[in-house]
Amino acid sequence: MRRIHVIGIGAGDPGYVTAQAVDALNDVDVFFASDKGAVKDDLVSLRREICERFIREPGYRFVELPDPKRSKEAPDGAAYRQVVADWHAARAELWAQALRDELADDGVGAFLAWGDPSLYDSTLRILDMVADRVEFTYDVIPGITAIQALTARHRIPLNDVGAPVLITTGRRLREEGLSGTAVVMLDGDCAFLDCPPTTEIWWGAYLGTPDELLLAGTVADVGERIAAVRAEARNRHGWIMDIYLLRS
Amino acid sequence: MRRIHVIGIGAGDPGYVTAQAVDALNDVDVFFASDKGAVKDDLVSLRREICERFIREPGYRFVELPDPKRSKEAPDGAAYRQVVADWHAARAELWAQALRDELADDGVGAFLAWGDPSLYDSTLRILDMVADRVEFTYDVIPGITAIQALTARHRIPLNDVGAPVLITTGRRLREEGLSGTAVVMLDGDCAFLDCPPTTEIWWGAYLGTPDELLLAGTVADVGERIAAVRAEARNRHGWIMDIYLLRS
Repeated sequence: MRRIHVIGIGAGDPGYVTAQAVDALNDVDVFFASDKGAVKDDLVSLRREICERFIREPGYRFVELPDPKRSKEAPDGAAYRQVVADWHAARAELWAQALRDELADDGVGAFLAWGDPSLYDSTLRILDMVADRVEFTYDVIPGITAIQALTARHRIPLNDVGAPVLITTGRRLREEGLSGTAVVMLDGDCAFLDCPPTTEIWWGAYLGTPDELLLAGTVADVGERIAAVRAEARNRHGWIMDIYLLRS
Repeated sequence: MRRIHVIGIGAGDPGYVTAQAVDALNDVDVFFASDKGAVKDDLVSLRREICERFIREPGYRFVELPDPKRSKEAPDGAAYRQVVADWHAARAELWAQALRDELADDGVGAFLAWGDPSLYDSTLRILDMVADRVEFTYDVIPGITAIQALTARHRIPLNDVGAPVLITTGRRLREEGLSGTAVVMLDGDCAFLDCPPTTEIWWGAYLGTPDELLLAGTVADVGERIAAVRAEARNRHGWIMDIYLLRS
């Protein structure tokens, strides 16, 4: 029976890799990867660094997964979810083929997830659909998310005492506004600029890497600066991964 | 100058310890600890296991921090926050004294946090107050939270596609009800039983330890069973740490 590890390798810093992830990495014959676009070169080299640092005996190999074309449109609500579902189904078909072709019947494969496999990552959803097409067993290895990396680097608590925290997206923040504390991920448009000027923000980009950027203050004091630093960095790297915590 | 590491050691499984945490553990002269009550013996032995597994050269020592008496009352809202603030101030005084007495001027101390230091943990808030009383520098090492452990063990995504997730407490869930997806921590009273019967729940206790318990289903199907299993386990161990994910 084929076995699969879905391994959270943490949010950027190879030091975020856990002992359990190291054991799993050392168990793997074939790593399946599907990076794309501008982000690809930087992430591939980071991943290579992690494998070289933590895997004791070489012998593993990487298999590049082809990626189905994704619709360029970004419709709202139900239509958006349908586009995502169709794209997941197309990927599942390609992944199933790759498992059959590249992994021996008793082989061990892995999918590496930046941060943690549970958070805004589609690997688990797609694997669920792959399981209808190929037989395999799998486990999930948790990883340090960008949320933990952000709060650690700013040395702040995530929550106020006894209070809740919303994990959300830039799109949702714009639609629903802020109440209390929110962590915002996947925001390409600086939605924090629409928050009341007294809102506190802790922002981080490329967390845990040598290119890490950190800024904090009120939206009035640092909002525009974050937007400018973000635009410049994104331009220079060709991609950006950032996240921020807001408190009313 | 004294240095302090605030180290997240993950949610139970020693395998959740990160490479960065291992480096920090090996840097420490004095571990400051303040466990109490029934939970104490189990957690102290888990912590000892982590230190023995990951620290290469002995020579470190543990210092038990005395704990101020905490009011037994649990008032609501502002009064509750005042009780917590007073208790934090009393702890800060005791911690400052311990740093002065137990740590050399150029020594390295550490506070270990279960899970991650940012999530429903008071160490960072208290250290902020200690910094007014003793001079030291500190850094924060992120750890695998019970949230990541829960989703990994159930092999589920935390969020629906593009959708937000609320991290909250049992008290808040009871007061505010559920909408969408919520992770509930610090719930001593099975607040999930008040949710609509079709609500999906993924529950875990003692995550990452040999005593781990996992149950999942709808509230109608498994709600009462979780409550019974929880009460039995709590009775047997003398304490329980559990967490659950709800989806409407």
